[in-house]
Amino acid sequence: MKKFNTSPISGMQELTPALQAQFDNLKSGIAQAFRAHGFQHIETPIIERTEVLLAKAGGDTEKQIYKVVKTAETAHDADQALRFDHTVPLARYTVEHMNDLAFPFKVTQIARNFRGERAQRGRFREFYQCDVDVIGRGELAVAYDAEVIATLAEAIRTLPLPGFVVRISNRKLLGGMLEELNLEHLASEIFDIVDHAEKVPMEKTVARLEELGLGEENVVKITTFIGISGARESVVEKLRSFGFENEIFQAGVAELDEVMLLIGELSPETEVMADMLIVRGLDYYTGTVFETIVPERRELGSICSGGRYENLAGYYTDQKLPGVGGSIGLTRLFFMLQDCELVTASERKPVEICVVPITKNEVSAAERVARELRSAGKTVDLVLSEKKLGDKMKYAGRVARYVAVIGEDEAKSGEYELRELK
Amino acid sequence: MKKFNTSPISGMQELTPALQAQFDNLKSGIAQAFRAHGFQHIETPIIERTEVLLAKAGGDTEKQIYKVVKTAETAHDADQALRFDHTVPLARYTVEHMNDLAFPFKVTQIARNFRGERAQRGRFREFYQCDVDVIGRGELAVAYDAEVIATLAEAIRTLPLPGFVVRISNRKLLGGMLEELNLEHLASEIFDIVDHAEKVPMEKTVARLEELGLGEENVVKITTFIGISGARESVVEKLRSFGFENEIFQAGVAELDEVMLLIGELSPETEVMADMLIVRGLDYYTGTVFETIVPERRELGSICSGGRYENLAGYYTDQKLPGVGGSIGLTRLFFMLQDCELVTASERKPVEICVVPITKNEVSAAERVARELRSAGKTVDLVLSEKKLGDKMKYAGRVARYVAVIGEDEAKSGEYELRELK
Repeated sequence: MKKFNTSPISGMQELTPALQAQFDNLKSGIAQAFRAHGFQHIETPIIERTEVLLAKAGGDTEKQIYKVVKTAETAHDADQALRFDHTVPLARYTVEHMNDLAFPFKVTQIARNFRGERAQRGRFREFYQCDVDVIGRGELAVAYDAEVIATLAEAIRTLPLPGFVVRISNRKLLGGMLEELNLEHLASEIFDIVDHAEKVPMEKTVARLEELGLGEENVVKITTFIGISGARESVVEKLRSFGFENEIFQAGVAELDEVMLLIGELSPETEVMADMLIVRGLDYYTGTVFETIVPERRELGSICSGGRYENLAGYYTDQKLPGVGGSIGLTRLFFMLQDCELVTASERKPVEICVVPITKNEVSAAERVARELRSAGKTVDLVLSEKKLGDKMKYAGRVARYVAVIGEDEAKSGEYELRELK
Repeated sequence: MKKFNTSPISGMQELTPALQAQFDNLKSGIAQAFRAHGFQHIETPIIERTEVLLAKAGGDTEKQIYKVVKTAETAHDADQALRFDHTVPLARYTVEHMNDLAFPFKVTQIARNFRGERAQRGRFREFYQCDVDVIGRGELAVAYDAEVIATLAEAIRTLPLPGFVVRISNRKLLGGMLEELNLEHLASEIFDIVDHAEKVPMEKTVARLEELGLGEENVVKITTFIGISGARESVVEKLRSFGFENEIFQAGVAELDEVMLLIGELSPETEVMADMLIVRGLDYYTGTVFETIVPERRELGSICSGGRYENLAGYYTDQKLPGVGGSIGLTRLFFMLQDCELVTASERKPVEICVVPITKNEVSAAERVARELRSAGKTVDLVLSEKKLGDKMKYAGRVARYVAVIGEDEAKSGEYELRELK
């Protein structure tokens, strides 16, 4: 009888061993894809100084942060807290270890982050994020935008998904366009309207734009712009047909063109679509932005997103560190995959082979069998419990895919049979 | 110029990418050994309810625990905290998921734990522990004590160490002996004296025992007992020659005999020595106890230890859950391995091959080369920066072991040379 509430804290994902094995499998597929593309793995502490974490952040981040205190202290003196993403610790790490790093620094972090959000279905307070970033010192070729997206696409390809599409844009397009139209002063409002345009009816978006008093012609231009999507050549042509001379806009077109072309070369199997609806809410991004959807499973949302940022660590150093990165939110995705039955608990047993000695007399022989199988690279559970054979077989059926039963004959001859367990 | 203190919080291990690659390599060697022996991987949340963490603990644990608070709260209402070991969360997990587990539950956890200890050289506040445990429901064969030790020994064998010895004992020996001598009332004092005997001169230990007023004969018996060490047969013989009839003592002798015999069969390469100095401080252990030393590097201390416990989760359930487990403290060990130069930063480059296109014209050809090498399982960094060839080669030398330079000729012919980088 339970004497205690033993459930994990709400908002934490805790898996049975069978599901954990599948989670680990997805995680290592992603890690392997990142490694294959030359990204270097780092780990930063889970606890950081609060002033580091909040140097740049504000608003929601500050409200959601978990502060850490020793027993004797009060939250008031809490100068330490749990990291809420990988980007802020990466900025600190890059500045701290600058002299030990080769630039461009291609880096991956796969670990848990923490946010004290209100717990709700599919939202987690402790969650794995699988990040790749490329950090330049002073400058960073736009080709790395393509490299990051191609790498993430290779990683996503290892997941049990029915196809995916990378949707890509460049914030210089809308930004340059607003400069051209003399609407820079309304940039943050308009970026916000575009960012939400996909979730509301078109009339609502038009109405919100009209409320800003832009003039009808500008509203038409912006709505025409956000309606543009498709293959590289056609989108680049449509963008050029606006005839904007603004340099930022033109740089955006050139970058979008180059990045899409390069993704096609780096990862030809990946479906990439330009889509002007993508702006990514964060004003942190300054160029390429992208999201990834699964057309047959729109309910999964964006399973991977990211973009280019002008300066990673402006709060910590005078050195300019432009970067580009992206992230797969694996904890949430794993939850959704179970929900869609793209992952099920029964698919995978934790162990390959169970070796079962019938009595204590066959333990030595069973050990030899287990050792042999392990040297051949198998995962092997040797059953040492002193139970009846029936109980041992029932156990084997729960943990392993195959069983080798070792009785007197098998012990003598050294020969045994591997039987599949149902 | 740095504008901010970007060092990690003291007591946290943060590695450069080259050292991180080596750390990861050791960690995955350990994980692979655990998996090969049929241990199932689980992950529990890093944040637990304080009442769960402190149900059993007290004293130092309570002082060292990191409590977690949301911004608006004070430490006073901190009902959540960071886990300080894997055992307490394992107890909660086993009770919570009882119906989804097959018993004996062979389980491994490899993750970071947190203790707000005073930071000092070689002591970490955030540290990896690599644990294996076997949990029985109601009962658990003593053979699993051997399985846990054999599995840990296989894991240790993957580490860059010049040999190691497992030192083993059984707490029933000293416990039963004290019953036989009618000294149970002094058990906790005497266990403590034996636990510290190795670190002080023998006279000091004798003096501490004499202070307890045991009588000379008993002092001689105890010091004779703790002087016993060596191979299985000789130690078992010496223990029997005490002539104690106490049942607990006799059970201890039988268990030590069986466990050592079985380790020899399960892991013949492993050097195991019985040693009555081993008692493990924690009164949590009730049978087999063990530590592991590296004779040529005594300064490493015990790199792996553990033992048998009567009841994992008595605070959470009425169900009796006996278990046996052990742990490798990898963060501290990795620090010590660097200190002894058994691990050095230069040993391992993060990437196998760097592919360097000489100019932008060879990027497509270089991509093809990178893709081919990746399909062959290599880790490949494609250099996309628009720098001079000399700069690209300097970069390649820092991150990769081999380089493939792709110029006009290589692009045309599709043939290229892999050159080793110094």
